[in-house]
Amino acid sequence: MTETPAPLAPDPESETNSTEPELERPWEPLAKCLESKDAKAAAGFLEDLNSEDQRRAMSRLSSEEQAQIVALVEPEVAADLLEHLPEVQAVDILEVIAPESGADIVEALPEDTGADLLRGMDEAESEALLAELDDIDEAENLRVRTEYEADSAGGLMTESFAAFPETATVGDVLGELSHNAEMYGDMDVQYVYVINDSGILRGVLRLRDLVLTRRAVPVVEIMIADPVAVQVSDDFEALLRTFDEKAYVGLPVVDESCLLVGVVTRQAVDEATADQQTEDYLLTSGIVGGEELRSMPMLLRCRRRLAWLAPNILLNIVAASVIAMYEDTLQAVIALAVFLPIVSDMSGCSGNQAVAVSMRELTLGLIRPGEYLRVIWKEGILGLMNGIVLGTLLGTIAGIWKDNVYLGLVIGSALALNTILSVLLGGLVPLLLKKLKVDPALASGPILTTCTDMCGFFLVLNLASLVLTKLT
Amino acid sequence: MTETPAPLAPDPESETNSTEPELERPWEPLAKCLESKDAKAAAGFLEDLNSEDQRRAMSRLSSEEQAQIVALVEPEVAADLLEHLPEVQAVDILEVIAPESGADIVEALPEDTGADLLRGMDEAESEALLAELDDIDEAENLRVRTEYEADSAGGLMTESFAAFPETATVGDVLGELSHNAEMYGDMDVQYVYVINDSGILRGVLRLRDLVLTRRAVPVVEIMIADPVAVQVSDDFEALLRTFDEKAYVGLPVVDESCLLVGVVTRQAVDEATADQQTEDYLLTSGIVGGEELRSMPMLLRCRRRLAWLAPNILLNIVAASVIAMYEDTLQAVIALAVFLPIVSDMSGCSGNQAVAVSMRELTLGLIRPGEYLRVIWKEGILGLMNGIVLGTLLGTIAGIWKDNVYLGLVIGSALALNTILSVLLGGLVPLLLKKLKVDPALASGPILTTCTDMCGFFLVLNLASLVLTKLT
Repeated sequence: MTETPAPLAPDPESETNSTEPELERPWEPLAKCLESKDAKAAAGFLEDLNSEDQRRAMSRLSSEEQAQIVALVEPEVAADLLEHLPEVQAVDILEVIAPESGADIVEALPEDTGADLLRGMDEAESEALLAELDDIDEAENLRVRTEYEADSAGGLMTESFAAFPETATVGDVLGELSHNAEMYGDMDVQYVYVINDSGILRGVLRLRDLVLTRRAVPVVEIMIADPVAVQVSDDFEALLRTFDEKAYVGLPVVDESCLLVGVVTRQAVDEATADQQTEDYLLTSGIVGGEELRSMPMLLRCRRRLAWLAPNILLNIVAASVIAMYEDTLQAVIALAVFLPIVSDMSGCSGNQAVAVSMRELTLGLIRPGEYLRVIWKEGILGLMNGIVLGTLLGTIAGIWKDNVYLGLVIGSALALNTILSVLLGGLVPLLLKKLKVDPALASGPILTTCTDMCGFFLVLNLASLVLTKLT
Repeated sequence: MTETPAPLAPDPESETNSTEPELERPWEPLAKCLESKDAKAAAGFLEDLNSEDQRRAMSRLSSEEQAQIVALVEPEVAADLLEHLPEVQAVDILEVIAPESGADIVEALPEDTGADLLRGMDEAESEALLAELDDIDEAENLRVRTEYEADSAGGLMTESFAAFPETATVGDVLGELSHNAEMYGDMDVQYVYVINDSGILRGVLRLRDLVLTRRAVPVVEIMIADPVAVQVSDDFEALLRTFDEKAYVGLPVVDESCLLVGVVTRQAVDEATADQQTEDYLLTSGIVGGEELRSMPMLLRCRRRLAWLAPNILLNIVAASVIAMYEDTLQAVIALAVFLPIVSDMSGCSGNQAVAVSMRELTLGLIRPGEYLRVIWKEGILGLMNGIVLGTLLGTIAGIWKDNVYLGLVIGSALALNTILSVLLGGLVPLLLKKLKVDPALASGPILTTCTDMCGFFLVLNLASLVLTKLT
């Protein structure tokens, strides 16, 4: 028999009564440090936790306690902690603590992370924090960066890069890298850039080529001249397209005068993609106005969720008003009431499938927002076929249940027709919203549901009223 | 007045009648090449297209035409094309073409991409393809790789890495890199690994350190000894945790005997994350059994969508059967029928919000699958508050509409109670499914909807039957 080896790390899904209770409830020691105002113990404890436990520990504390912890420890420890927290939580903390403390922490953060957090803050509060920065150049730099869209080239770039003049030799570059190894060590240098006297980008040097070339050779001889670069104002879609073309690890960023201003890495682009997918998922699920974590204040969470629910209740009432118009029909054939929600829900499901396929094809660039005809063609046929299958299924059940073939026909054809309508609508709505520059993740769902509900109710009740004598 | 500058590239959202019609409908020239069997023209045309247009062009052709194009051009051109297509499409193509042609293409692909595609294929077809590979070692290698889970360390790793013996000097390493610059050029070498005679990982060398050290120094002096490594069998969650800890660009992968077998890059992990988010989004939207593109065969698309809809229709019938049990109540107060779908839909929306927050907190590791009490507490209070707001809103509308305060009370309290239930359920279901190792993205929606529908119908009709005399 094989023995199971002892696990090296505690299983995160193991029982709550673990032998290492401090990992199960990591917020308790932290709260204790806070009570005793023991900065050293707090810092030591935080440093021993892995990133996930840091997040878990902080997420169980109130906003005030989180801010107290951050204010208690050294700026470097706080910066490390904020880097591991969800961005929305890090922003909240920076908004709560004193601007002086915030400034110390931002100084200890990588510039792009600092800019991300400042961008998330209220403008007055981020200004107050920037005013407290000791280094006026850095403050100005951060101010400029926060003005770029978060996921534009300017927002995603790092300003830590190594650039050398056209007159340099391989030896000069290697010497400088060696001399300031400490500084370049943070940069993850794979490419080194060549600029002219004015700072205009002229070429890219691969570290590999530097290593493999004699030191006396001028860099201009081994650099890749006229390299691919992105504009600082390039939006996220433009970046995605450029990075889609080739397996670039990173690309230089230039401003409108071709001055080299930064470097955007594929990693930054990939992370922004993941962030956007998360945001889309949350929007689709009705979490609007920013990410929600359960550690946030209850009233804020209620208000944000209601901001989505309240308009939805109105749309629901509009849809259900169709039922009110047919009260007589419903009164005569009360069995119809059973099928109203089934028809509307099922059509909603069919429509959602079509929404998802359109969203995916838009992301992959397989379809352009103007190509309605293809969607109508491809979804129309599918809707017809699936409508017939589902309509037959539900219609048969309805007909057998009440032993009335007309009821079966009414319910079956209502579902079949509404399925066709809803897949067409579901396929088209994301394209239309994209064309109107409205986020399809936000609006597709409510538009689709309202329309398919209304049409579903109308079809069932209207068809029933046409053959009312046969149904009673 | 400022003049708008002429755009450098065609606007993807511009009118269909562009001056560059070959970019608007890139599939037409491709179909023409196919008709005339002109391999050279097809290859030339494909190479001129950017990745997105390659995808668009292929997506408009039938599966047979796609396979014909791939079989027509040289394996290298076909490999480049397959790399830019959605994986599901590339897999379909490999399944359709002859195994010999497939083998030539897989040989021209990077090994990890090849393994991904083989993993997606039917086993018989991938075996047939592997049997046609000229290089038996590569075939064996690929066979082993396809046995790892796609998003485990073994599935995500690349086997192209540079490893040197412990006895090497800096000069040896630089000499070898220089000598085989061509080969290492494809690897994007940032780290070089040091192994002992048996192939066991001993250390990691940063290219930067190599550059900055005299050539006579033995590598063991500058290597990072006992480096962080991942196990080849590590699953995706373990990888995420490791990469979450530090800004590793890549990590060595070792097998159970500590032999160095590959390197997994952060980029591979980020891409796998994005793929998983996409899959979750599609599952949530009811696209099951694999990604759907509209270029796929109609019957396959219908069948896959029905695979999700058919069980859903049964769940819907179960939920609606509650209405059938209360036909008398409904007959007496037909206005209730208007509010049944409103109450169930609104509760569904509230529940979905809670699902999204739980999914997000699980992803961030802020909550563990066993921590029900926290969810019950945090969602319970929120549900109570939002339930009161929404219940008051809808109850008031109902009461005023029919001028009956009891109707308002019934509808209002039903919505309030059902909101509490649905946020509790929505918050808990993802945790429960995670604990049961069922994908929450797949099952949360239907479970939640069925329960909130049933409870909503029951609450409205049961409360109404309690005060029936006041309602009529």
